[in-house]
Amino acid sequence: MTDRIEADYLIETAEDPSKAAQVMAGEQSSGTFVSVPGEDAPGVRVARARVERLEVVGEAERPSLPGATPGRPVLARATLSWPLSNMGPSLPNLQATVAGNLFELRAFSGLKLLDLRLPRAFADRNPGPRWGIKGTRRLTGVAAGPLIGTIIKPSVGLSPEETADLVRTLVEAGIDFIKDDELQADGPHCPFPDRVRAVMRVIRDHADRTGKKVMFAFNLTGEVDEMRARHDLVLAEGGTAVMASMHSVGLTGMLALARHTQLPIHAHRNGWGSVGRHPNHGISYVAWSKLWRLAGADHLHVNGLANKFCEDDESVIASARSLLTPLWEDAPMVTMPVFSSGQTIRQAAGTWAALGTDDLIHAAGGGILAHPQGPKAGVESLREAWAAAKAGEDIANHAAHSPALAGALEAYR
Amino acid sequence: MTDRIEADYLIETAEDPSKAAQVMAGEQSSGTFVSVPGEDAPGVRVARARVERLEVVGEAERPSLPGATPGRPVLARATLSWPLSNMGPSLPNLQATVAGNLFELRAFSGLKLLDLRLPRAFADRNPGPRWGIKGTRRLTGVAAGPLIGTIIKPSVGLSPEETADLVRTLVEAGIDFIKDDELQADGPHCPFPDRVRAVMRVIRDHADRTGKKVMFAFNLTGEVDEMRARHDLVLAEGGTAVMASMHSVGLTGMLALARHTQLPIHAHRNGWGSVGRHPNHGISYVAWSKLWRLAGADHLHVNGLANKFCEDDESVIASARSLLTPLWEDAPMVTMPVFSSGQTIRQAAGTWAALGTDDLIHAAGGGILAHPQGPKAGVESLREAWAAAKAGEDIANHAAHSPALAGALEAYR
Repeated sequence: MTDRIEADYLIETAEDPSKAAQVMAGEQSSGTFVSVPGEDAPGVRVARARVERLEVVGEAERPSLPGATPGRPVLARATLSWPLSNMGPSLPNLQATVAGNLFELRAFSGLKLLDLRLPRAFADRNPGPRWGIKGTRRLTGVAAGPLIGTIIKPSVGLSPEETADLVRTLVEAGIDFIKDDELQADGPHCPFPDRVRAVMRVIRDHADRTGKKVMFAFNLTGEVDEMRARHDLVLAEGGTAVMASMHSVGLTGMLALARHTQLPIHAHRNGWGSVGRHPNHGISYVAWSKLWRLAGADHLHVNGLANKFCEDDESVIASARSLLTPLWEDAPMVTMPVFSSGQTIRQAAGTWAALGTDDLIHAAGGGILAHPQGPKAGVESLREAWAAAKAGEDIANHAAHSPALAGALEAYR
Repeated sequence: MTDRIEADYLIETAEDPSKAAQVMAGEQSSGTFVSVPGEDAPGVRVARARVERLEVVGEAERPSLPGATPGRPVLARATLSWPLSNMGPSLPNLQATVAGNLFELRAFSGLKLLDLRLPRAFADRNPGPRWGIKGTRRLTGVAAGPLIGTIIKPSVGLSPEETADLVRTLVEAGIDFIKDDELQADGPHCPFPDRVRAVMRVIRDHADRTGKKVMFAFNLTGEVDEMRARHDLVLAEGGTAVMASMHSVGLTGMLALARHTQLPIHAHRNGWGSVGRHPNHGISYVAWSKLWRLAGADHLHVNGLANKFCEDDESVIASARSLLTPLWEDAPMVTMPVFSSGQTIRQAAGTWAALGTDDLIHAAGGGILAHPQGPKAGVESLREAWAAAKAGEDIANHAAHSPALAGALEAYR
C-alpha cells in the first residue's frame, strides 16, 4: 500500500518509447513544453509523475490513429505513478489525471489505459457498492444460483400498462430480476412515475401472493434532482433497484446518486464501445469499471459469452473476473456482473467454467420469452442449464429430466 | 423544425450497408433480435427509429476495429431519426439513444457520430450557455479583440501562494483570462478554498487599482455538492468564472452545475481524445460539443492551430466554427471557443483568416511567459499579432512599430 496512484498503459509510438512515456508523465503532472518560472518549486518536484516501468512488447503493423509522429510504431506497456496529493481521492479529478489530455498526445498513435491501482484513501472517500452481491441476494431472496434476469423488450414504445402486463408475465414465469432498457427513461409516452406505479403494483401483488419480490431496475437516468426524486418514488412504491447509464450521468452524476440512494444501483454501460472497443486506444473495461465500482455501482454490465455484439469471450470473462476481484482486502467493493446480450441456456456452462461462481445476473430476452413452452419454461430452462453446469453434467443428459431444458435445447441452437 | 431527432453517422461495415443501418435503427429504438410479444403495439411502431438517408462514400482499406463481421468494409454516411417522444428533451437520455450500445454492434468495424439536429424542445428544457461571448466580454471588460488568456503552469504542484504570485505577474502583464490547469483541483497541497482566496486577493487588488478585473476560471471539478460549494466561494470572493472537466462530471454533473451557477462555465475537454480522435469511430467534436453547449458550457476548448497535440488545423477550425454556429435561430446557444496548446503570435493570422472573428479566447503559456522581454510584452505581442491579422497587415511589417511583437517574432519561430 503506497500513497501513489499507479496506472498501466498500452502505448503505441514511433518515438523512443521511454522518451514518449516521459512526455506522458510530464503532460499529466507538472511538465511544461517550454521552461517556465516556478517549475523548480519544491511542490512541483513532488507532484511530478514517474515512469515506474516500461516494456516494449511488440510492433504495430501500422499506426492505429492519425496525427502521430510518423514512423512504424512499437507497442509498449508503461506504468506511471502520481502522488495522491496531486488530486486527493476524488474520482472525477483522478479521471482527468489518468485519462485526460494524454489521448491526444502526438507521441502516440494509440494509447490505452489498461489498469489502475489506487491508494486505500479512495475507499474511505467514495461510497462503493453498498449492496453488491450479498445485498442483491438478500433483497431478491435468491440465496444460491445465478439471478435469472431479463430486459423489457421492445426497448421503447410500450405504455406503462403494456410494460406492467409484460412484467406480470415475467414474474409469473418465476424471474428474479427485470430491468428497463436503457432507451426507456421518462419519455412522454411512458412517464417514469406511471411506469413505476404500474409495474410495482404487479410486483407487490405477486410478492403478496408468493413471498417472492422480483427486483426491477428502473432506469432513472437524468439530471441529479430528477434522479433523486425518481429514486424516492421507487423506494416509496416498494421497489428494490434503480438503474443509470454511466456515460450519461458521468462519475459526478453517479456519485450524487450513490450518496442519495437506499437501493442498489444497476449500472448500464451503453456508450462503452466508444472508449473501450479499440484494442490500442481508449480505456479498458478493467480500469474503467474500477472507477464506477468506487462511485457506487452495485451491478455492472459485462456483455455475455457469444454475445450479439463485437466483444470476444475472453474479454467478457476478463471483465467479469475483474469485477469479482477485491479492490482492497478490507474494502473489496465487489460488484455483481450482469451477463446479457443474446443469452440462452447455451452460455451457462461456459460462463460457469470460466468463472467458477454464479454470483451474477444472467439476463436473457428471447432466451426466455421465445421459449416454445412459454416464459416459465424459459426461466426454468436457464436454471436447469446452470444446475447442470455446476454439477458438471452434460446439458443434453440433464435435459432428459427437464422438459423445459429439452425444449430450450431444441429452440436455441 | 420537426419533432424528430436526427443524427448523422459515418459507418464502416462489411455487411450490406442498408441492412446494417437498419440494425442500428432497431438496436437504438424498438428493435429486438428475436420476435417478442408486444412488438406490434401501436406505441412501439411509432417509437421505431428510421434510416432517413444512406450514402456509400468509399471503401476502407481494412477494418478499423476488430470483432466485426469479416470482409472488406465500405464507408457510408447514414442519417437516423427518432421521435422526440422516445426520451423527451433530456440530454443524458439523448446520449444513450444516439451514442449508446451502437458502438459495439458487430455489423460495424467503425461507427462515428458526426452530427446531431435536435428539436427546439431541447432549448426550452436545457440551460445552454447563459454568458457565452457577450457575457464573457461584459465580465472581463474586453469589448473587442480576442481575450488573451493563459493557463497556470506548472500544472500542479504550486501552493496557493505560489499560484497567487504567478497570477500577480500575469495580471500585471495585462492578461484578460487565466485558468487553472485541469490537473489542479482540490489536492491537499493546494486546497481549492485557499487557492481561490489567495488568487482573488490579487485579482481584486489589481481591479481596484486599474479597473480591470481579470477572469480566472477556477477548476471546481468534483462531486455535485463540492462543485456548488466551490462555486459559491468563488462568487463570494468576487470571482467571475468556474471550470469543470466535461468527461469527469458527465452531462448530469454539468447540468447540475449549470442549474446552480451564477458564473460562466469554462468547459475543459480533457479525455476527448478517447472518444473523438479516431476518424471512423466514436463521437465527432461537432456532435459532442452540441450536447455540452445545451448543458451549459460558456467556453469550450477547441485545441489550437499548429498545436502540440495530434489534431490537424482543419479539425480545429471545424470545431470552432461549429461552436459559433447557432443551434437554433431564436436560441443560438453559441459558446466561446478557447484556443490553446502551444499557441504563440504565430497562430493569430491563421485563426483570424479561418474564422473571420475574434470572439474567442486565445490562450498561450510559453507564448506569454517565455517572451524575452517578459510577460507584459508577451501579452502585448499577442494583441499586436491579432491587430495585424485583422488589418490584413504582414506580421513582420507590423512588428516594425511594436518592439514586443518584434521580440516575439525572434523568440517563437
